[in-house]
Amino acid sequence: MDSVKIGLGNTTLLKIGIVGATAYTSLELIKILLRHPKVKITYLGVRKTDNPKISDIFPALKHILDLPCTTIDQKDIPTTIDLAFITLPPTVSMQYVPLFTKNGIKVIDFSADYRFRDKSLYEKWYKAQHTDNNGIETAVYGLPELFRNEIKKTALVGNPGCYTTATILALAPLLAKGLIYPEDIIVDAKSGVSGRGREPKEDTHYCECNENIEAYSVGGHRHSPEIEHILSIKTHQKVSIQFVPHLIPMNRGILCTIYAKPKNAVAGGALSLRNEEIFELYKEAYSKEPFIRLKEGQEVPRTKDVAYTNFCDISVKATENRIVILSAIDNLIKGASGQAVQNMNVMCGFDEKMGLL
Amino acid sequence: MDSVKIGLGNTTLLKIGIVGATAYTSLELIKILLRHPKVKITYLGVRKTDNPKISDIFPALKHILDLPCTTIDQKDIPTTIDLAFITLPPTVSMQYVPLFTKNGIKVIDFSADYRFRDKSLYEKWYKAQHTDNNGIETAVYGLPELFRNEIKKTALVGNPGCYTTATILALAPLLAKGLIYPEDIIVDAKSGVSGRGREPKEDTHYCECNENIEAYSVGGHRHSPEIEHILSIKTHQKVSIQFVPHLIPMNRGILCTIYAKPKNAVAGGALSLRNEEIFELYKEAYSKEPFIRLKEGQEVPRTKDVAYTNFCDISVKATENRIVILSAIDNLIKGASGQAVQNMNVMCGFDEKMGLL
Amino acid sequence: MDSVKIGLGNTTLLKIGIVGATAYTSLELIKILLRHPKVKITYLGVRKTDNPKISDIFPALKHILDLPCTTIDQKDIPTTIDLAFITLPPTVSMQYVPLFTKNGIKVIDFSADYRFRDKSLYEKWYKAQHTDNNGIETAVYGLPELFRNEIKKTALVGNPGCYTTATILALAPLLAKGLIYPEDIIVDAKSGVSGRGREPKEDTHYCECNENIEAYSVGGHRHSPEIEHILSIKTHQKVSIQFVPHLIPMNRGILCTIYAKPKNAVAGGALSLRNEEIFELYKEAYSKEPFIRLKEGQEVPRTKDVAYTNFCDISVKATENRIVILSAIDNLIKGASGQAVQNMNVMCGFDEKMGLL
Amino acid sequence: MDSVKIGLGNTTLLKIGIVGATAYTSLELIKILLRHPKVKITYLGVRKTDNPKISDIFPALKHILDLPCTTIDQKDIPTTIDLAFITLPPTVSMQYVPLFTKNGIKVIDFSADYRFRDKSLYEKWYKAQHTDNNGIETAVYGLPELFRNEIKKTALVGNPGCYTTATILALAPLLAKGLIYPEDIIVDAKSGVSGRGREPKEDTHYCECNENIEAYSVGGHRHSPEIEHILSIKTHQKVSIQFVPHLIPMNRGILCTIYAKPKNAVAGGALSLRNEEIFELYKEAYSKEPFIRLKEGQEVPRTKDVAYTNFCDISVKATENRIVILSAIDNLIKGASGQAVQNMNVMCGFDEKMGLL
Repeated sequence: MDSVKIGLGNTTLLKIGIVGATAYTSLELIKILLRHPKVKITYLGVRKTDNPKISDIFPALKHILDLPCTTIDQKDIPTTIDLAFITLPPTVSMQYVPLFTKNGIKVIDFSADYRFRDKSLYEKWYKAQHTDNNGIETAVYGLPELFRNEIKKTALVGNPGCYTTATILALAPLLAKGLIYPEDIIVDAKSGVSGRGREPKEDTHYCECNENIEAYSVGGHRHSPEIEHILSIKTHQKVSIQFVPHLIPMNRGILCTIYAKPKNAVAGGALSLRNEEIFELYKEAYSKEPFIRLKEGQEVPRTKDVAYTNFCDISVKATENRIVILSAIDNLIKGASGQAVQNMNVMCGFDEKMGLL
Repeated sequence: MDSVKIGLGNTTLLKIGIVGATAYTSLELIKILLRHPKVKITYLGVRKTDNPKISDIFPALKHILDLPCTTIDQKDIPTTIDLAFITLPPTVSMQYVPLFTKNGIKVIDFSADYRFRDKSLYEKWYKAQHTDNNGIETAVYGLPELFRNEIKKTALVGNPGCYTTATILALAPLLAKGLIYPEDIIVDAKSGVSGRGREPKEDTHYCECNENIEAYSVGGHRHSPEIEHILSIKTHQKVSIQFVPHLIPMNRGILCTIYAKPKNAVAGGALSLRNEEIFELYKEAYSKEPFIRLKEGQEVPRTKDVAYTNFCDISVKATENRIVILSAIDNLIKGASGQAVQNMNVMCGFDEKMGLL
Repeated sequence: MDSVKIGLGNTTLLKIGIVGATAYTSLELIKILLRHPKVKITYLGVRKTDNPKISDIFPALKHILDLPCTTIDQKDIPTTIDLAFITLPPTVSMQYVPLFTKNGIKVIDFSADYRFRDKSLYEKWYKAQHTDNNGIETAVYGLPELFRNEIKKTALVGNPGCYTTATILALAPLLAKGLIYPEDIIVDAKSGVSGRGREPKEDTHYCECNENIEAYSVGGHRHSPEIEHILSIKTHQKVSIQFVPHLIPMNRGILCTIYAKPKNAVAGGALSLRNEEIFELYKEAYSKEPFIRLKEGQEVPRTKDVAYTNFCDISVKATENRIVILSAIDNLIKGASGQAVQNMNVMCGFDEKMGLL
Repeated sequence: MDSVKIGLGNTTLLKIGIVGATAYTSLELIKILLRHPKVKITYLGVRKTDNPKISDIFPALKHILDLPCTTIDQKDIPTTIDLAFITLPPTVSMQYVPLFTKNGIKVIDFSADYRFRDKSLYEKWYKAQHTDNNGIETAVYGLPELFRNEIKKTALVGNPGCYTTATILALAPLLAKGLIYPEDIIVDAKSGVSGRGREPKEDTHYCECNENIEAYSVGGHRHSPEIEHILSIKTHQKVSIQFVPHLIPMNRGILCTIYAKPKNAVAGGALSLRNEEIFELYKEAYSKEPFIRLKEGQEVPRTKDVAYTNFCDISVKATENRIVILSAIDNLIKGASGQAVQNMNVMCGFDEKMGLL
């Protein structure tokens, strides 16, 4: 691993642990951290019990990181690390997170367990009692573009999911200015298959996905409440979205096509909100953001352009009756591991782009 | 070719010509016709001038149909055929169609040239003067599920496009009953790459399409006016849709995700239209249709299930604020060549399913 | 199902059973049989116990074949069928096959259980005792191009696998004439993922297959002995091949690239066997075969051209040191279900192409 | 661009020019150079004349490198750069290379123009007169694993192609020790579509490539002479290979499956070369190489594991009659741009891994 710090004169590096190291997101996280000049990975916790090397789990890491993994154990938390990325499933994660935070270890959690400020909302959608009251109260939602100041001060971040990142970033500027009806928003989301996780199931079988597109969870995907919750808090109104996700035959990438209804269109007729004005609004909101790129003119976001990057590409266009916002991210990077590192950079006072360009 | 009529005791077969035989849709059309017990292909017209065999253009046809192609020529129309499928581009097609019809040859035209009853609408969107007044007045829109009786009597069919077929079939029952707002409909369409045609261009390059999804023609695709035109005529109201198409990394298939606003939902609150009632409505409309399959319960249309078939799979589901309709077709079959053969069957009094199962 | 026999005036149809109806090959088999004018499917046996309709297992069959499946049971074999296709795994199949044959039911078995004339060879590679001596002695290898006369007379066919079909057809003419060294043959085979079966496993996960190519079973794939066994029997010499299969990111199709060493090249120097002579040899062997297409000149076999067909496309070219033979088939059709129907046609005296064009 | 040098305290950076900046390889080259701590890109030459920004050509580079491109002109070579990567086509490249070298600018050329020491061999295969005698005499073949010492001292590198890199690295150890017959080597190569270049052509159309595999240039690919030339020079014997490339439906990656005949197998019978000995041989040759990874036991190279990296993964296995060597690289990285940067690192005295991990 040290090989990647070539010529950097490593002084003190932040010691990183990854808990739940076998997910697709973990592989991406490791690759990013290996390029990051201020950190080193010192602990890899897995739920397997045979102590494999991480490079046995991910052959792509051979000769890059051959670190052995440790079986995770609530009674034996690694205390020498400075920061832990927890990539365990929802409801499992909350059993581990407090064990780290009480030892003074910063935590960035990938599950939904620390994304809700309203415990009952979490419990309704994840059908489980939340056992870490203190955590849920102190956790900050890890979307730096919206909550940067809070992230700077916290020791516990709930890292957003991929659909939510793409949707919230696309909608926040219009909602914040009160220019669209908050209860009349349609989000048609398209995701590559890595978003479905690494476990082999019928719906991730190559021959079922390839040459196919289908919707799933029509009318009941559990990312909707997270999106509504965060947008409502941030823009001070009750936001309600119609969210339909689709599975696309590609490994990675998310595209959200969002249809919002402009408020003044009702009175003023078609296109009373001019494209130039809307574009200015987004520029104002995002022009200083290192990882948001606005597409101008006829350009549209393409998952290809954001693949393997932490960028979120956004376009916005008023049509006769609707404002159509498109946003594209790499679900494993800006939708998971890249964003987690961005959060780490903010929490630790590093340059926010470090390791991510 | 005759080999495929095994054991059928061919008596008189309908003589078929295909004009514009090099498109992807033409290959599919040929395959279907070769399986059809009542027809034989006797003429293949192409715009190339070197008289290739059709099996040189499509190696998949070797040993199946090795018929030589003829260079198409307005001065030398084949007069011995009974029915012509015209697969020429819009604005070119109308130069040929009247030459066939005036010779008593039935025509099924694949371009947009005979899909509009309103000439000015065609001319606005296709930016060309329509030169066949008589044709536009007598042509019937070739969607048997909606215009079967008219198709039975006509000699000229304007065969619908792929997006329009999937969208119109999905929306017609709700619009016909006046249950949704006709001006507040969102159609998020996803298409495989064969929908972009066979010409090599940057946006059909494998490396640009693969591992990518992107929207195109946001706010201005010319299939919208066709959809609006036909649905308005058929359901006697001004229908207006927001249509955004997307390119998906797969060869064939279209999925439309459609968001409609129920009329009584405003007064009666959420979900005042019950899922059972809506499903009954669709069953009533389509249960006798040989090529429409309604998905029940948790099932959703998948492009995989309709690939290489003439089926349109449809699901419909009321959510809190919207009715979500999903429809899937094979863009080359029900969205083009299969539908054309279905139209031929209706026009010629054959069993409607002939050659298509 | 009867819908597909439109206009055929069905008299007596052969009653077909499929035992093991949930495999990918079974879906293809059903589709072909539904188009076949002389048969009807009357029994579908599965190892599941909840008696699903076949269209619940394969939604693509909705409205086409909604027949309920029966749980297969050695004590309750369907005796009213005329012919059974057995698509059970090797070593399971032989437990069922004799129960059918002793009831006078013709059997076409998809497993390896009836492909070897040498029982000990089977037992060595499949690591199991063969329990049906009578079956192994009377079974015929179901490659009509090589064993048509035997197939005509048998009641039990061992249907070849996909790799073996593509390889044997490619090599037989050269070996039969003694023009290549039988022990110096290299077969580099490439297969789509459906060849790996329908069970979700890590190596069939979309994200593992997509954007990847890898070899497997290097130096020990159990299709090698089958290929060597059949070619040795048929061409009266000890044939030995070096076989390496690869997994390709596509649903269906097999391409074999075969490198053979011409015998006279050693003495006569490079290219002493002329391309024209070799091509003539293949033409002589295959020009009357309905499902073999020889590619001439610069043309090469493409899996795309044989997809969804029963064709085997073959090219042969002498280079400086080797003869390179390419052969392409659809692994689910000519490599499994299409070939099975071709065998049925031969066994039952139907036109060999029936249902297959 | 400077953003990527975060925290590095940039002192003097090597000034880099890329001549021919619109190829797929150029995009990858730019991405790698942006991560390299010792260089900066100061010149981008293109053959277009409208001076686009590089981020207009590659939207993925927006906000990362928005440098305008310059129209390349033999009369106006950029003289302030320190090193030029030339990514022009063969026969064009040699018109530019001497203009750079005579100005003291180091050159790494991506075309075939500087890969041959034997001018007549180049002229035979590229059907053009070579106009840069001096260049061809001083150029070094840019495969660091074989020519590191020469690369250290040269100012002009002929950067190898993708097929050649994968093949030469796989074969060199066995050939160097004289353990295989140098004239009896079969290389079955599989490449993703990006290897075919960025120009839209029929054979790079999505629908032609997807769900297809085919061989091309059977018996006459012009990478064979390059492979034979370099291996012959390096291992002091006449090497002759049978090379057949195939196009695979994936964006990037090459897998070579190589069949070599062990010399002592003839006398000693099967497997007289033990797997352990062969593996030791490769370990000896490559264990210190930063970008070669040997796969042990049942592991095989997968293009997935080397994608987006500069690694070449190799396995070697003796079977009954042959030694089967598998090698996988990313055709755009180790097969082009990564290798070019590795060469730059060697030429400039940087750590060889810099920018590449």
